Amino acid sequence: MPQKPAIPKGTRDFSPREVARRNYIIDTIRKYFRIYGFMPIETPAMENMDTLMGKYGEEGDRLIFKILNSGDFIRKVDDFTYSSKDSRSLTPKISDKALRYDLTVPFARYVVMHQNEIDFPFKRYQIQPVWRADRPQKGRFREFYQCDADVVGPRSLWQEVEFIQLYGAVFSELKLNDVQIKLNNRKVLSGIAEVIGAKNHLVDFTVALDKLDKIGREAVIAEMQDKGIKMEAIEKARPLFSLSGSAMEKLDKLDDFLSHSEIGKEGVEELRFIITSLDALDSRDTRIEIDVTLARGLNYYTGTIMEVAPPEAVAMGSIGGGGRYDDLTGIFGLKDVSGVGISFGLDRIYLVLEELGLFPEEIDQTLDVLFINFGNQEALQSLKLIKKLRNNGIKADLYPQNTKIQKQMKYANNRQVPYVVMIGEEELNQGQFVVKDMVKGTQKTYQLQDPDLFISEL
Amino acid sequence: MPQKPAIPKGTRDFSPREVARRNYIIDTIRKYFRIYGFMPIETPAMENMDTLMGKYGEEGDRLIFKILNSGDFIRKVDDFTYSSKDSRSLTPKISDKALRYDLTVPFARYVVMHQNEIDFPFKRYQIQPVWRADRPQKGRFREFYQCDADVVGPRSLWQEVEFIQLYGAVFSELKLNDVQIKLNNRKVLSGIAEVIGAKNHLVDFTVALDKLDKIGREAVIAEMQDKGIKMEAIEKARPLFSLSGSAMEKLDKLDDFLSHSEIGKEGVEELRFIITSLDALDSRDTRIEIDVTLARGLNYYTGTIMEVAPPEAVAMGSIGGGGRYDDLTGIFGLKDVSGVGISFGLDRIYLVLEELGLFPEEIDQTLDVLFINFGNQEALQSLKLIKKLRNNGIKADLYPQNTKIQKQMKYANNRQVPYVVMIGEEELNQGQFVVKDMVKGTQKTYQLQDPDLFISEL
Repeated sequence: MPQKPAIPKGTRDFSPREVARRNYIIDTIRKYFRIYGFMPIETPAMENMDTLMGKYGEEGDRLIFKILNSGDFIRKVDDFTYSSKDSRSLTPKISDKALRYDLTVPFARYVVMHQNEIDFPFKRYQIQPVWRADRPQKGRFREFYQCDADVVGPRSLWQEVEFIQLYGAVFSELKLNDVQIKLNNRKVLSGIAEVIGAKNHLVDFTVALDKLDKIGREAVIAEMQDKGIKMEAIEKARPLFSLSGSAMEKLDKLDDFLSHSEIGKEGVEELRFIITSLDALDSRDTRIEIDVTLARGLNYYTGTIMEVAPPEAVAMGSIGGGGRYDDLTGIFGLKDVSGVGISFGLDRIYLVLEELGLFPEEIDQTLDVLFINFGNQEALQSLKLIKKLRNNGIKADLYPQNTKIQKQMKYANNRQVPYVVMIGEEELNQGQFVVKDMVKGTQKTYQLQDPDLFISEL
Repeated sequence: MPQKPAIPKGTRDFSPREVARRNYIIDTIRKYFRIYGFMPIETPAMENMDTLMGKYGEEGDRLIFKILNSGDFIRKVDDFTYSSKDSRSLTPKISDKALRYDLTVPFARYVVMHQNEIDFPFKRYQIQPVWRADRPQKGRFREFYQCDADVVGPRSLWQEVEFIQLYGAVFSELKLNDVQIKLNNRKVLSGIAEVIGAKNHLVDFTVALDKLDKIGREAVIAEMQDKGIKMEAIEKARPLFSLSGSAMEKLDKLDDFLSHSEIGKEGVEELRFIITSLDALDSRDTRIEIDVTLARGLNYYTGTIMEVAPPEAVAMGSIGGGGRYDDLTGIFGLKDVSGVGISFGLDRIYLVLEELGLFPEEIDQTLDVLFINFGNQEALQSLKLIKKLRNNGIKADLYPQNTKIQKQMKYANNRQVPYVVMIGEEELNQGQFVVKDMVKGTQKTYQLQDPDLFISEL
C-alpha cells in the first residue's frame, strides 16, 4: 500500500519560486557581508551534545533536537538508568550528538578549536539552517536559516558603526527604505538601575520596561511593583517612559539622568560616538532611534544592543538584531574574546518583501527561451541553436517530447517563458526559425545562419 | 572547567578558504543547472521516518540518522517493547523523524506531494547536505553535499543528450577537460544476460563484471563461477571482456553480440541515438566511452547509466553519475513517472581540483583593500573613502583598532590583501591618501577629493 507522503510539522518544502525569492534575499545579504570584509565559514549540522547543552538555558536544552546513537544503542545503557524509565536520564546515554540550535555557539566552538589558524580580528559570516523543537506556529518553524555576521577580537566601536551601515546597505538594496534601527546599550540599562536604586532588579526592571510599547505605562509599573521594585525607584525612572526627540536629544537627556552613574555615562558616550560617526559618514539614510526599552537577551550582551524594526506599514516583529558580548568563548576555555555581531531574520524579511510586493519580477523567470519540439530532425536543429544561446548565458531549453503544440505552449505559459522558438519542418527546409514574443504576442522570423541577431535582441 | 571543544567524527568545519573553494564549484554547477532550464527546490533536513525507511535496503536503514522524539519520549513506549531492551524494536517507538540520506527519495516525496502544482516535465535541481552514519574514512563523511539535477515526466532520450552536454559544460568551466564520461544501458546488461543464458544471474553477472578494471579477467570469471553462473555462459560473454574501439565501433560489436535479444538491441539503439546526436551537436569535446561493465545501482536504473571518471592523472573514483529510472514515485503512490538525472560529487571534485591546482587564485581573495587605523580622526576619514569603495562593489575594510602598524600590516599580509591604504595625520592634513601595492611593494599618493582615480586603477 503506497504511503501518503508528508513532512514533519514545522518543516517546509521550498518550491522553485520560493527558493528563488529566498536566494534573492540571501544573495543580497551575502553580497554586503563580503563587501564589508566578512569571510564565510560553515559548521556541521550536528554538534557533540556537550557543545550545545547548558548554553541556552533549561528551556533551550529541551528544544534541542537530539540524534539517536547508531547501532545497538541500548546495550550501552546501564541497568539502573534503564530501569528508571526516565526520559531525562536516559537521553544522555542513548544520544551524544544534536542538531545545532543557533549559529553563535557553534561559532564560539569554531573560534576556540581553530584559534591558531585564525587571524584576529576575525570577521566571519555564516548562513546555515538551525533546528529547534519549538511548538510550530505561524511564522515559527522547526527548521529555519540564520544569517549571522560577527567580528571577534577588537573592542572598537567602529564595528558598531559598520554594522549599522551594513544593515542600511542590505535593506536599501532590498528596497526596504523605511526600516528603523533601534539602539541601546547594556551599560545604559545598568546605569538606570543604579540611579533609581534597583541595581539588584536589573533584569526584572528591563524585562518590564521592554513591554512598554505593548502593554502601556501603567501595566509596566504594575509588573515592576509585582517583581519587588520599590515605588520610589519606579517614580525615579518615570522620565524614561516618555523619552522623546532626536537621537542626540535623547542622549542629552540620558546624560543628565545618568550623571551619577559612571557605567551609565559610559553607555551614553558609546551611543554618542556611534551616532556622531554615522552623521559624519552621512550614513543616516536609515532611521536610527535610541530606545532605552530595548533589551534583547540581556544576560548575553554587554555593550551595544541593536534591533531592526520593519517598515511601519507591516505589523511584524524585528527583522534583525545583534549587539556586543564580551565573553563569547569563555565557556570553551578561551578568555577575554570580545565579539559584536548582527543577524538577519530571513523568514520575516521574506514575509515583509512579499507583503509590500518588493520582490523583483525577474527572479521568477526560470527560463528565457523554450523551443517547441516538432520531432527528432527539428529537435536536433533546435539543440544546435540552444547550445549557442546557452553559451551566451541564456537559459534555453527544448521541450523534450514531440507532443501536441498546445500542450507545449501551455507549459511555456505556466513557466512564464518570455520567448518561444519554433523550428518546424518548413522552417528547417528554409533555414529559418520563428520567435514568438509571449508577452506582446508578436512573431518574428530569423535565419538559422544568423542567431546572433536574435541573441542581440533578447 | 572549560570543555575542550570537538566536532562529531565524520563531520567537518569549513574555513573561509574552504567555503570559497566549495562555493566556486557549487556556483559553477548551479550556473549550468540554471542555463539548462533546471529549477531549484529545497526539502527539509528531517523527513518522517516512514518516508525514508525501506528505501535504501537493510544497510541503508541502519545508516540513517534517527532523531529522538522530544519531551518525555519514553512514556509512549509500551511495557512489552521496553522490557525487550532491544534497540531495533525500541527505535520506531522513540523516534519518528530522521535526517535525509540522499536527495532522491525526498525529491520523489516532493513530486508526489506537490504533483498538482508542478508543470511536467519538471526539471529540478537540488544542492543540499545529506547525512549517513557510515564509518568515517578518508574521503567519506557523515555529512556531505549532494548536487542533483533530474527531469521528471518525459521518456525522451534528448534528456540524456542534454545531461551529457551539461556535464561537459560544467567540467570544462572548471578546467577539467580530461574527464571521461562512461555510458551504459541497463537494457544492454539485460540483453547480455539473456544472450549468454544467465537471465536469472543478471545482478551477480554485472556485479562481477563491474570489477573487471580492478581485479582482472580471471578473478571476474572465478567470481562468476562462484555465484553459480555456468562456464558455458561465461565463455559466451568473453568478447565483452575485451571490447575495444571507438564508441560507434563498440556499439556495432554489441549489436552483433545482442542480435538475438530484443531488449539488448533496444539498449544499443538508445546508446546509438545519444552518441549520434552528440556528434551532430558537436558536443564530443568530452571523451565519451561505452562501458558495458558500468552498472551503478543496477536495481534502480532502467535505461541509460552514466558515470564521470576524473582525469587519469588523478587516482580517484567517479566524480559524478546518474541515469534513467522508470519508477521514481511509485513507492509514494504515483505510478508511471519516469525520471532521468545526474549528480555531481562535490567532495571528490574538490580534491581533484586541489590536486591539479585548478582553483583560480582570485577566489581566495576575501578583501581588496585594507585601511590602516591611525586613530579616530583618521579612521573617520578612512571610513568615508571605504564607503565610496564599497558602493563600487570593492571589498574594503578598516582595521578596527589603532594598534601598532606592524601588527596591522601583518594582518593585511595574512589575509593576502593586495592594497593597503594609509591615511595618517599628515595625509589627513594634506587631503591625501597613500596606497601601498602589497604585491609590487610600491606606494602611490592620491588626493582625497579624487578617489575615482584610485578606483579606476584597481
